[in-house]
Amino acid sequence: MSKTPKIINDPNHCAAELLDGLVEAYDGEAKKVGSGSIVMTDLPQGKVALLVGGGSGHEPIYHGLVGKNMADGAACGDIFAAPPPDIVLEATQAVDRGKGVLYLYGNYAGDVMNFDMGAELAEDEDIKVETVLIWDDVASAPPDRKEDRRGIAGLVLIVKIAGAAAATVDSLDELVRVTTKARDNTRSVGVAVAAGSIPATGAPTFELEEGKMGVGMGIHGEKGVRVDTICTADELAPQLLDIIFGDDLEFNEGDEVVLFINSLGSTTQMELLILNRALKPILAAKGIVVYDTVIGDIVTCQEMAGLSVSLMKLDDELKKYWDMPCQSVGYSKM
Amino acid sequence: MSKTPKIINDPNHCAAELLDGLVEAYDGEAKKVGSGSIVMTDLPQGKVALLVGGGSGHEPIYHGLVGKNMADGAACGDIFAAPPPDIVLEATQAVDRGKGVLYLYGNYAGDVMNFDMGAELAEDEDIKVETVLIWDDVASAPPDRKEDRRGIAGLVLIVKIAGAAAATVDSLDELVRVTTKARDNTRSVGVAVAAGSIPATGAPTFELEEGKMGVGMGIHGEKGVRVDTICTADELAPQLLDIIFGDDLEFNEGDEVVLFINSLGSTTQMELLILNRALKPILAAKGIVVYDTVIGDIVTCQEMAGLSVSLMKLDDELKKYWDMPCQSVGYSKM
Repeated sequence: MSKTPKIINDPNHCAAELLDGLVEAYDGEAKKVGSGSIVMTDLPQGKVALLVGGGSGHEPIYHGLVGKNMADGAACGDIFAAPPPDIVLEATQAVDRGKGVLYLYGNYAGDVMNFDMGAELAEDEDIKVETVLIWDDVASAPPDRKEDRRGIAGLVLIVKIAGAAAATVDSLDELVRVTTKARDNTRSVGVAVAAGSIPATGAPTFELEEGKMGVGMGIHGEKGVRVDTICTADELAPQLLDIIFGDDLEFNEGDEVVLFINSLGSTTQMELLILNRALKPILAAKGIVVYDTVIGDIVTCQEMAGLSVSLMKLDDELKKYWDMPCQSVGYSKM
Repeated sequence: MSKTPKIINDPNHCAAELLDGLVEAYDGEAKKVGSGSIVMTDLPQGKVALLVGGGSGHEPIYHGLVGKNMADGAACGDIFAAPPPDIVLEATQAVDRGKGVLYLYGNYAGDVMNFDMGAELAEDEDIKVETVLIWDDVASAPPDRKEDRRGIAGLVLIVKIAGAAAATVDSLDELVRVTTKARDNTRSVGVAVAAGSIPATGAPTFELEEGKMGVGMGIHGEKGVRVDTICTADELAPQLLDIIFGDDLEFNEGDEVVLFINSLGSTTQMELLILNRALKPILAAKGIVVYDTVIGDIVTCQEMAGLSVSLMKLDDELKKYWDMPCQSVGYSKM
């Protein structure tokens, strides 16, 4: 497949330039800090802080989830690269208001290493840091090895909850408790049908034979559960839900969930909606009540084609945080 | 360029199935009416109604702009086809609450013909109908022939204003006045770098030589102002703004605007943000104040690559309606 033509400047400066453009998109509500962070401008003293982050190239995540009742800041890496510890530290210092900082990001080795080093540097500055890793991708490891699972699109739902909680709670421990619950209640699985391209080189982000789909494949092309011939939406919907329902989190009759159908880039909203049409009756037949449906391309990998399905099981507390309005470049809610 | 693989069912049933999926995405807040309309479930008696619509395949518009403080309903056509008059009538009857209905849609010949016939049928049923056509694409005809201009991404800003006004005003005439002002204050121009594909056939939606960009090209590949070699974002930004500033609407020092940078499908948010970085200093140099920036892929044509820039000039009244929260599948605001 040919590369989709891109309208950029120097292909090696994409991460820095998109961050500048992102800061500009907040029209004063957020500012750039140091060499690679974006932070909300008016964070009140005494606020428990939420810091997200990760590699660039997956816009609007993570940095586009900075906003009102969302993340207070983001530490941004280069394209598909973790933010280095000094950037994590700069972001941490910029969001801390004396009550400590929660790091919330996807479970990738490079991110964990760099955020952990950033946390050490922050603790040297007497800033209290806690970490919740996002590992919602059920296809990436079995349930007894959750710490080996990747973070994918479910992160949007988890950051939404954590952002609302961070605007409300009194302590870092309480934010950790709520965020951990949101994380533990979220499961995702994706399917890839075509790679995106690396901005600096134009090379595809992974190899996938034409006409094939990688079920459970990660957003960078990480190994999934199987490679099949591309099937119809109606055939795919039960396959994806079976993978989620086969996991350790029980979804029972009467359970309320948020359903998020995410495009990885060039997969159209038309396709997400056609899949939604196929998913809903299966959920209904199990007695699962969809409290809210989110449709969009929020966790992407350039012009990659594919999609993912995420379910977050709600209780009264999570529902309260879900219902709070929020505003960011990547996700907003009235 | 090869076709991006799509996850669908019968390629000839995409429009009907995506509408079903869209209705499901509203989780009870909207319902399907007749064979091709989506309408909000709880519309209060005495509300002035806003109806949008057009061909499918451009998701999330138009039907994804139905929502709270957004459109009350949408009449949906088949893929890239206007909704027929009977669907327009069904949607009109479903949204009318005794105060009349404003039709607001893009200025394409097929849409105009079908909505006009729908309006005649509605008037036979004693429903008062007014129409405001969206013609924001400055590249599609000179300013003295606005009625020949196409509606493109600026429609999102216009529907946002009209939806907020429709939730507030007492009369259809007042809604027409506000919506006309929003329309007259909005200008857009787009650039295409690769075609999308027609769902039923896989054929490209238009021909464009590889490495070339159609400046001012329409979302279905309609003729623009010129075809050039693809340039950088920094080179493109002044070209697009020059086209808008060369039009008849004056943007003066101190004017406040909403800036909307839209992806036509597979163009990444990374690119939209890099373009934003280039646009903002040019606007600032002219003394134009960006009141709000919207970044997203809301007006698409399948996996088409390209983007557009829209500016809506605000006054106090438009700002009041812009500031109102809204919620829809396609665009939400806290």
